[in-house]
Amino acid sequence: MRALFIGRFQPFHLGHVEVLKKFDFEYVIAIGSAYESYTKENPFTAGERYEMIHEGMMEAGIKNFHIVPVPDINRYGVYVKHLADITPSFDKVITNKKVIKEIFEREGYEVISTPLYKRKEYRGEVIRRRIAKKMPWEHLLPKSVADYIKKIRGVERIQAIYAKDF
Amino acid sequence: MRALFIGRFQPFHLGHVEVLKKFDFEYVIAIGSAYESYTKENPFTAGERYEMIHEGMMEAGIKNFHIVPVPDINRYGVYVKHLADITPSFDKVITNKKVIKEIFEREGYEVISTPLYKRKEYRGEVIRRRIAKKMPWEHLLPKSVADYIKKIRGVERIQAIYAKDF
Amino acid sequence: MRALFIGRFQPFHLGHVEVLKKFDFEYVIAIGSAYESYTKENPFTAGERYEMIHEGMMEAGIKNFHIVPVPDINRYGVYVKHLADITPSFDKVITNKKVIKEIFEREGYEVISTPLYKRKEYRGEVIRRRIAKKMPWEHLLPKSVADYIKKIRGVERIQAIYAKDF
Amino acid sequence: MRALFIGRFQPFHLGHVEVLKKFDFEYVIAIGSAYESYTKENPFTAGERYEMIHEGMMEAGIKNFHIVPVPDINRYGVYVKHLADITPSFDKVITNKKVIKEIFEREGYEVISTPLYKRKEYRGEVIRRRIAKKMPWEHLLPKSVADYIKKIRGVERIQAIYAKDF
Amino acid sequence: MRALFIGRFQPFHLGHVEVLKKFDFEYVIAIGSAYESYTKENPFTAGERYEMIHEGMMEAGIKNFHIVPVPDINRYGVYVKHLADITPSFDKVITNKKVIKEIFEREGYEVISTPLYKRKEYRGEVIRRRIAKKMPWEHLLPKSVADYIKKIRGVERIQAIYAKDF
Amino acid sequence: MRALFIGRFQPFHLGHVEVLKKFDFEYVIAIGSAYESYTKENPFTAGERYEMIHEGMMEAGIKNFHIVPVPDINRYGVYVKHLADITPSFDKVITNKKVIKEIFEREGYEVISTPLYKRKEYRGEVIRRRIAKKMPWEHLLPKSVADYIKKIRGVERIQAIYAKDF
Repeated sequence: MRALFIGRFQPFHLGHVEVLKKFDFEYVIAIGSAYESYTKENPFTAGERYEMIHEGMMEAGIKNFHIVPVPDINRYGVYVKHLADITPSFDKVITNKKVIKEIFEREGYEVISTPLYKRKEYRGEVIRRRIAKKMPWEHLLPKSVADYIKKIRGVERIQAIYAKDF
Repeated sequence: MRALFIGRFQPFHLGHVEVLKKFDFEYVIAIGSAYESYTKENPFTAGERYEMIHEGMMEAGIKNFHIVPVPDINRYGVYVKHLADITPSFDKVITNKKVIKEIFEREGYEVISTPLYKRKEYRGEVIRRRIAKKMPWEHLLPKSVADYIKKIRGVERIQAIYAKDF
Repeated sequence: MRALFIGRFQPFHLGHVEVLKKFDFEYVIAIGSAYESYTKENPFTAGERYEMIHEGMMEAGIKNFHIVPVPDINRYGVYVKHLADITPSFDKVITNKKVIKEIFEREGYEVISTPLYKRKEYRGEVIRRRIAKKMPWEHLLPKSVADYIKKIRGVERIQAIYAKDF
Repeated sequence: MRALFIGRFQPFHLGHVEVLKKFDFEYVIAIGSAYESYTKENPFTAGERYEMIHEGMMEAGIKNFHIVPVPDINRYGVYVKHLADITPSFDKVITNKKVIKEIFEREGYEVISTPLYKRKEYRGEVIRRRIAKKMPWEHLLPKSVADYIKKIRGVERIQAIYAKDF
Repeated sequence: MRALFIGRFQPFHLGHVEVLKKFDFEYVIAIGSAYESYTKENPFTAGERYEMIHEGMMEAGIKNFHIVPVPDINRYGVYVKHLADITPSFDKVITNKKVIKEIFEREGYEVISTPLYKRKEYRGEVIRRRIAKKMPWEHLLPKSVADYIKKIRGVERIQAIYAKDF
Repeated sequence: MRALFIGRFQPFHLGHVEVLKKFDFEYVIAIGSAYESYTKENPFTAGERYEMIHEGMMEAGIKNFHIVPVPDINRYGVYVKHLADITPSFDKVITNKKVIKEIFEREGYEVISTPLYKRKEYRGEVIRRRIAKKMPWEHLLPKSVADYIKKIRGVERIQAIYAKDF
């Protein structure tokens, strides 16, 4: 039984891990907005996010998964097919976004809506802002992911992206 | 005498019908942002909008028209040519947007600026919001278009798109 | 009952008319390669082809149809969805190409395979070459289409495209 | 010694000239967002901006430069390579944006950060707004550039773009 | 030590396996032309090729690898960066194509040129043609890959793609 | 009086110089297929071609020119506008290709058709093949351009591109 889990993973954090640990599926993890990087919304490249997810999954002891970077096409009417065209096949989709649910159900997929884990804290946007503002952030990520971000100088990068320019 | 009428038609409503009934042209109706769908700005696919316009025109008794979906190119400097390349030819353009007037006049087209009908009410953005908020909306559309939207479960779709996700 | 009929219509000719007259469907006529023009394969713009089809259908007395230009996406795995996203809905597909049959059946459409009418003569490539070589060609097209091509100086265009450049 | 200077140049103004006059490099001037035009952010086409820069540089007595329009690719991770692929080669980059510094340093370029000249006044956004609001603006540009803008009716264009549409 | 191995894998065959078994690297396997499918050159989608590679690697007992679909950008000058932007990082590149060697060396990667295994037989183009012509082909692939192709009716697909259409 | 001269300039050679020396125009030199490189048809990047043209023009003593890389859009119906949108304005077009003449005249430009200089020898395709086959080629180019090609190791590159891969 394969389940799709889509996200932008900017960065991959413990909220993601909590959801993935709930089930016993073989996962297809789709990295959305794969071509975006070095922006406030998407500081990390898809390649870097691929490594974060891989490290984080190993640390969490989840072994049965496939990671696929998925470029945006900005056409929701075609998005499901676009994604399914470049990923291993799947039967289920895990999401808590209503419009994602809508477009996958329209194509005949079973959608599992699951509440996110401590959504106010474990959230990409919040974590990026904490890094930008030099507030503590490492406790929100798997240790290996936090280490990876520091290794690639991701902290400095996010601070540069959030900096005022004059 | 053929006139171009451009819009996103999200959805096609009575304000559009009022403008089209004013003249006795053969119309080229261009569906702008044809690749956008399932977003707040553009909930319906171009194919769905094609059907709405066709139904609404029949209901209004206007018979002499051509409908053409036009994908965005996000290059206004080339947009007029891009559009004219994939539509039947036309001599006039009906618009009330100053920048659209500017780019078509620059290419030598005659532009007719006509005030929109009851612009505060008969307006896509207002209608989409009314649907999202479960306020009355059907009186703003041709009956056949309202019926079509209900048939394709467009009400539920717009409510899902506007929903908060957590 | 709506049926899809896809082609490049370079130009729209009597072979197309013969197939369309065989059935009593409401047609969705998709103009493929809509962004191509001024090449040997695709001398006419989608807008010009739109006008040819409209003229030719009127002349043939077929009234129940919708014409939609469809840009290529060069991704057959997504093509059916791409097309269906911007056309009115349809139930059947008329084609004699095995791979088109394959990709539409995969998406659950009924495909009608029908032999083409005098395929050796009534064929875009053959007609374009006849025009280029100044051989008779008008008898292969609806009269209104031949007239339209002459009016837009399409004969001179095709001869320029096929000309050797030095 | 060649230095890259990137901007959108909407329009090319005296702030740009001040920076360029500071150094004695051979310049590669990259016109960013080259495909954008007729919007609030980017009213002028790349071709028009090319002419503005050329006029302004002549007026300022700077002779050793190359102008290259660079379309966006919206992928910062690849942007430096994308740009370097279509411009003459360069060794240094002049910028005051931290994230631009970051992406060029990552590719091994030397980056010169220089404070902008009277940044509150000499700034594209401010100048465009002044034009839209019919406030004085010509003193902020090289005379030849102001003349060019008036010649191509750029004042009217910006006012049309900024106008409310109903 | 991570090594990049690029191919289109149409299909993944024993020639690929032989090369991968020669070394003891952690592999990044990039599926080139990821958006192509249902053509003579590229009959299988990237998603299907992902599954083939995964099955074939398991069967060959190679465990340390990452698979990444890479869409074409048709700009060799930027291709290396485009690829590296969406894949886990790597140090070496395994290829026997001189131009691929050229573009990766230009970006500072170490390139390992290794002769292909029985290149006349173990070759995608040859295998696809054998399938199309109903000649024996299964012995050229890992058993699990041949089984997968049969399961998804890939044999019929290739025969439809290679069929004459009239 | 400004004249457009379009080419791919793979490489810029003495045949180009001969044509440009015939007239006394201010030239807009458009580098076509600007995003192509490292292929048989287009071995050099647009940036490299920019430098070749600049060197060659200096050597020929022609001073009044602007160079602009122009990416393909593969839509001849829109190509003229696409090009004019990113280049300085021009009144005339110099070309010897009939279809280029056709599309520019259609947009109202004056086209000058001029025979090419010793077309059998002074021709990109011929020169690239001579380089690939290690035949003499330098006499067909301005000296500065031949020197530039050798400096960037363009000879080795073309030989790698033309090499058989196994």
